[in-house]
Amino acid sequence: MHLNWLRSFPALPDRQDPDLTPSALARAELESAFPGWDLTLTLSPGMGDTWVYDRIGRSVILTGGETGLLYGAYALIRAGLAGRALPEHLESAPAYGLRMIDCWDNLDGSIERGYAGRSLFFEGGRFAYDPARVRHVARMMASVGLNVLCVNNVNVRQPAQSLMDGLLPDLSALADLFRPFGVRLMISVDFSAPLGCGVGSADPLSPEVRQWWAEAADRIYAEVPDLAGFLVKADSEGQPGPHTYGRTHAEGANMLAEALRPHGGTVVWRCFVYNCKQDWRDKGTDRPMAAYDTYKPLDGQFAENVILQVKNGPFDFQVREPLSPLLLGMSRTPLGLEVQLAQEYTGQQIDLYTMATLWKEIMADLPAGNIRAMAAVSNLGRDENYFGHPLAAVNLFTFGRLCWDPAGYDPEAAVTEWIRLSYGFTGAEENALRGWMLRSREIYEKYTAPLGLCWMVNPHTHYGPNPWGYEFDLWGTYNRADRQAVGIDRTGAGTGYTLQYPPALRERYENPQTCPDGLKLFFHRMAYDAVMADGRTLIQRIYDDHFEGAREAEAMRDALKALPFPAPDRQVIAERADRQAENAREWRDVVNTFFRRLSGADDARGRRIYD
Amino acid sequence: MHLNWLRSFPALPDRQDPDLTPSALARAELESAFPGWDLTLTLSPGMGDTWVYDRIGRSVILTGGETGLLYGAYALIRAGLAGRALPEHLESAPAYGLRMIDCWDNLDGSIERGYAGRSLFFEGGRFAYDPARVRHVARMMASVGLNVLCVNNVNVRQPAQSLMDGLLPDLSALADLFRPFGVRLMISVDFSAPLGCGVGSADPLSPEVRQWWAEAADRIYAEVPDLAGFLVKADSEGQPGPHTYGRTHAEGANMLAEALRPHGGTVVWRCFVYNCKQDWRDKGTDRPMAAYDTYKPLDGQFAENVILQVKNGPFDFQVREPLSPLLLGMSRTPLGLEVQLAQEYTGQQIDLYTMATLWKEIMADLPAGNIRAMAAVSNLGRDENYFGHPLAAVNLFTFGRLCWDPAGYDPEAAVTEWIRLSYGFTGAEENALRGWMLRSREIYEKYTAPLGLCWMVNPHTHYGPNPWGYEFDLWGTYNRADRQAVGIDRTGAGTGYTLQYPPALRERYENPQTCPDGLKLFFHRMAYDAVMADGRTLIQRIYDDHFEGAREAEAMRDALKALPFPAPDRQVIAERADRQAENAREWRDVVNTFFRRLSGADDARGRRIYD
Repeated sequence: MHLNWLRSFPALPDRQDPDLTPSALARAELESAFPGWDLTLTLSPGMGDTWVYDRIGRSVILTGGETGLLYGAYALIRAGLAGRALPEHLESAPAYGLRMIDCWDNLDGSIERGYAGRSLFFEGGRFAYDPARVRHVARMMASVGLNVLCVNNVNVRQPAQSLMDGLLPDLSALADLFRPFGVRLMISVDFSAPLGCGVGSADPLSPEVRQWWAEAADRIYAEVPDLAGFLVKADSEGQPGPHTYGRTHAEGANMLAEALRPHGGTVVWRCFVYNCKQDWRDKGTDRPMAAYDTYKPLDGQFAENVILQVKNGPFDFQVREPLSPLLLGMSRTPLGLEVQLAQEYTGQQIDLYTMATLWKEIMADLPAGNIRAMAAVSNLGRDENYFGHPLAAVNLFTFGRLCWDPAGYDPEAAVTEWIRLSYGFTGAEENALRGWMLRSREIYEKYTAPLGLCWMVNPHTHYGPNPWGYEFDLWGTYNRADRQAVGIDRTGAGTGYTLQYPPALRERYENPQTCPDGLKLFFHRMAYDAVMADGRTLIQRIYDDHFEGAREAEAMRDALKALPFPAPDRQVIAERADRQAENAREWRDVVNTFFRRLSGADDARGRRIYD
Repeated sequence: MHLNWLRSFPALPDRQDPDLTPSALARAELESAFPGWDLTLTLSPGMGDTWVYDRIGRSVILTGGETGLLYGAYALIRAGLAGRALPEHLESAPAYGLRMIDCWDNLDGSIERGYAGRSLFFEGGRFAYDPARVRHVARMMASVGLNVLCVNNVNVRQPAQSLMDGLLPDLSALADLFRPFGVRLMISVDFSAPLGCGVGSADPLSPEVRQWWAEAADRIYAEVPDLAGFLVKADSEGQPGPHTYGRTHAEGANMLAEALRPHGGTVVWRCFVYNCKQDWRDKGTDRPMAAYDTYKPLDGQFAENVILQVKNGPFDFQVREPLSPLLLGMSRTPLGLEVQLAQEYTGQQIDLYTMATLWKEIMADLPAGNIRAMAAVSNLGRDENYFGHPLAAVNLFTFGRLCWDPAGYDPEAAVTEWIRLSYGFTGAEENALRGWMLRSREIYEKYTAPLGLCWMVNPHTHYGPNPWGYEFDLWGTYNRADRQAVGIDRTGAGTGYTLQYPPALRERYENPQTCPDGLKLFFHRMAYDAVMADGRTLIQRIYDDHFEGAREAEAMRDALKALPFPAPDRQVIAERADRQAENAREWRDVVNTFFRRLSGADDARGRRIYD
């Protein structure tokens, strides 16, 4: 079994005591990792996830809640194995209560936007898993403080509704495997579920519907008493929702919240709502504005046990987006931030794309205020190494580190720790690998869609270049490139999207001088001959980025191949690096050719751009 | 049951005598259609498909082979029901021995490029059909002289190989249903079939492989003694073939021919071979040249019972293509012409696209010489009306008429006959419908890809506009539009494709003055401001065509809705006409916007082109 960053951890016993508690597991993990320690563990149930560490002479004292002790234990083990010295006293508590991985696994075993093989949990309409591998996933999650796993796709495809019914005993058995690791399960539910069950409606204000959900919750919690709650995608991309009945999303979410409240469950309600049947001719609709327009008027109307889960950007996990204004505009509503570890638009776990710095950038604009949860779309699958690309594991690792302590989160330190736990490298090798991993986002960004343009991908697969693949489609994803210019003016003078931001960000984005280069074409329509801050024209910047990005992908490939990864990672990494370099070359040429055909501009440095 | 153009034919008995012969059926059909006739049928077995008709006073004498009598009977019935007078003496024999419908039906019940519902023959990996509907298909075919049905997809997807084995009794039962109508079955076979059956190779020169195929043929013909033969797609789009073993297609086809020869079977070998992994940057490869380059050197090397089946154009059933040069360049090889009734690129049986005139245009350039077979990809499916669009039935009807008598084929007369058999219209209604049907190709052509450009369709589905959807892909399907010009120079000065034609056609296509407008951008790269014969610029011609095409689609929609089609055709036609008008609008705007963004040219008449 591939162990990823737990490679250096002591082996777990083959069989799991059914009554194993997180605190008992914490003790076992520590004793096995540091057999010589003079260790005192003190359980203080009220402390929950929190832990306190003290070293007095040769004695180590760890105090914490049931899960707190476990997180403390893993923190000590990570530090110890990574060779990081700890102070004599340390206290730690997570910044967010829900630290989630959302699996988009279907019961037929496929994974929507999965790039690491088939589902770890399902096959053929049923649960089907290797308990040892599931426990390993749970341990990976716990080792970085993650505490919820939503097991099925937010697009609830049948027979997933049986998770609320016939498959409950199996859901319970899976929860038993995760429980010692402090990981609670969540399920995605179909808002229209009552319709198929003898209730002629899914109207959230209908007493029969409310009753149906209350009974469903009772039934589910009888089997899985610590279920974290329901994840819901409603009125989005064809999914049903409260709008079907003329109700607001607050009314829809609150109905589910009422059903979960007696059981302590949470409704995580996704805010990914937009018009997915837009007319490309219609310039009066600007997709990034949709979520804010839908939810802002509902601020303050949601029940206490509802969390609105908002994607980091206003589009959909593109390579570069500004922070979603919805995250800044809902001061009276508990929010959750959603990111995507699954590399749908960021190389599909073929291309190296380390998100460690992305987390930092996202958090830079995010006020501490009312964020209650962090969720990441899973990049896990049944591949032997769980992540498709062995180095993609770092994204789950650093995401966990971020969720626990966003203030103290340091991308470089987090990646370093991951490398040390994963591979026994020399300092020079470690430095080389860390360097490429931290640069990998910039490299990918350079050779794909330029300066925040988004969506220049092949339809359906979302891998590889297709500058106008979505240009005349229904999805609101246009670049409107012509002979002179490219991009959409999203300022107050344009679609008005910037007006959804608080003044400081609005001004920053509206002014082409202060708008970050990486978002220039997200916010502005620019002429190809517009001069950038560094004196280059826009078109030359596009050409330069693409030539550089492809060249750097080749350099990265060569560098990765030179590193002494153990088998089988070595072969997998080499094979993916080859595919990435080819993909980068394709992106370079397609994007450069596309813009040259439109602009007529030659490369100032005379490099080859195909006709 | 929807009867299509057999609506006016007398009803068939519910049950079919298992020993019914075509000549007996001919007598029954005639007696039931014209009960008052003084009829003499004379069977002359050696005459085969041929028939002779004489009217002497009130006596009708029909003489012919077993199937000849049947075709004669249907010719008389069609003429009688359509009110067409016959001379006193008539002789008729088909121009081609094999007049085929190729079904791309998979055993799972799906149809590749099917637009009339699921398979009429298969479901769930097995035969599953309504005998009455199958007999109706057979009768439709026989009524226009078609005599072979290839029952499964040329892309042989498992478990289709069981047609040669476990499903043989079922294949035989299906053949029994078709046999009285003079229709023989054919099956598509997988060239690599022996590989999965204990033979470690599919090398056509291997004695074991040859033996395997001979035994397979013996087994199959024991169950279906009149099987027409095998249809084969080899070394194409991922299908295996002789190239895998370093053998030629002649060697591959001849091996199968040897196995079929003792049974009188024919190998129909498709010539749809090209590099489907082309690099768009590579201008040295021109896909339309591929089939000629592959097969021309093999001319004269094929066994007698092999027919090379060649698509009408060198690409793949695009809206407008020149005749494939392969059809003109293989003088020592029996050839078959393949057309596509399934409207993959021509509106998918949503948009009206009557092919009656297409047949005439194709035949205009085709020498009588060595064409031995005509094949059409089926437009049939399990929809109630068999064709999705009720008016799409005319394409199968006219195709049959063409195959029988290409010299005498008159599109207008054929469509008129179809209308009269299908609907009880007044003369004015008939004229209106015929007018729109005959114009429908031109209308469709105007609003889709301009002047023979091809491939501006949405990838995968092939419905709706996407000018660069295939531009940077692997399929050899490029338009290379830029700011100045569009198209690929396929003359001797360009890729050299025109050099594959005989001199007269070569000169016609090479010279921009004599090259037909509809193929201008197929053969030439043209500047947007190039002046056409009528004085308009190319870009203005593109704009005009698209505005006209969309307007005409609306006019056609209104006209069709005003005609008194019987239910359910009326509703289906109206619904499809609405979708067509919307599709035409989308094509108009996308194509015009695409070329305006590139060319910067405004419409000379000031009509709206979106940014």
